[in-house]
Amino acid sequence: MKKDIAPYTALFPHPAVLVSCGSLESPNIITIAWASTACLDPPMVSIAVTPTRYSYNLIMETKDFVVNLPRASDVRKVDLCGSVSGKDVDKFKECSFTPEASTKVSAPRIKECPVNIECYLDKTVHLGSHDLFIGQVASVAIDEEVLMHARPDTDKLNPIIYAQGVYYTFGDIIGTHGFSMGEADSE
Amino acid sequence: MKKDIAPYTALFPHPAVLVSCGSLESPNIITIAWASTACLDPPMVSIAVTPTRYSYNLIMETKDFVVNLPRASDVRKVDLCGSVSGKDVDKFKECSFTPEASTKVSAPRIKECPVNIECYLDKTVHLGSHDLFIGQVASVAIDEEVLMHARPDTDKLNPIIYAQGVYYTFGDIIGTHGFSMGEADSE
Repeated sequence: MKKDIAPYTALFPHPAVLVSCGSLESPNIITIAWASTACLDPPMVSIAVTPTRYSYNLIMETKDFVVNLPRASDVRKVDLCGSVSGKDVDKFKECSFTPEASTKVSAPRIKECPVNIECYLDKTVHLGSHDLFIGQVASVAIDEEVLMHARPDTDKLNPIIYAQGVYYTFGDIIGTHGFSMGEADSE
Repeated sequence: MKKDIAPYTALFPHPAVLVSCGSLESPNIITIAWASTACLDPPMVSIAVTPTRYSYNLIMETKDFVVNLPRASDVRKVDLCGSVSGKDVDKFKECSFTPEASTKVSAPRIKECPVNIECYLDKTVHLGSHDLFIGQVASVAIDEEVLMHARPDTDKLNPIIYAQGVYYTFGDIIGTHGFSMGEADSE
């Protein structure tokens, strides 16, 4: 039996990523779970940000941002960057993160994050409590420690999953894209 | 040392969800990984869909769709619904899924999925290879089997994570939202 629940944001899981913005001299970090890929070609990502957030205006000013993929071992810092405001706290300092110059955009990358996705702000979609920033990927930097065949190795990166207020690691592999077509006899 | 990689859609993980569309009489399913929450109030979700996909026009016609959260045990069906076209295959039949009438929208829900998020199409954002459909949540149905405190229990639901072509289950809990603030002395 199903029960009808009042409309709410029932979709999960989400990635837990760190978005860096501002300048190398005056950088900030905001933790975002409502982040996704939006388009393959050109490559684009979306992040949902509340207009009252300190990072919102920083992104609007430079018209760019960096999506940094953190490691599971950084989950406390990820949580902290989602719990305090850059108005009050220097989050780079608080987290012992190092802002490093990006290749293409003016917003700095987080040096300690093994994957940095530099984005130009392409569109701002006004929705309500949140606006959707759609960024076109300008450059991707990957730490050689996690690099395999020009892509990050998921195991080595060990990224963070966010679902209903809880942070998780990845569990078991249960399939690969297209496996239902090639292994039709195995089930 | 970091290596610069040509721009691509480097963000992950994503949820693997089943989006149902069309009508109760002529329904279709499309697997979407590029799905996310877009706004808290009003509650909105986004899904990225290629305009050449069969489901694209179905959604444009009815101006609504349902995001269904599948169980890990349905991963083969999830993969199948992302590998074949509704032009050629009746995916409900092929997957032994049952289309059931939604509460608010004309697109049917998938009965076997324990969470159904009914959405009215609010905005279509043209990006390139993909358009972003932004849907306002009209109603949420949750199976009582997975329901706990008016929300789905993540363990009981056992949803699917998608990352770089691989399907995963959830792993270990490594924190809860706000834990970095309350347990400052424990690390």
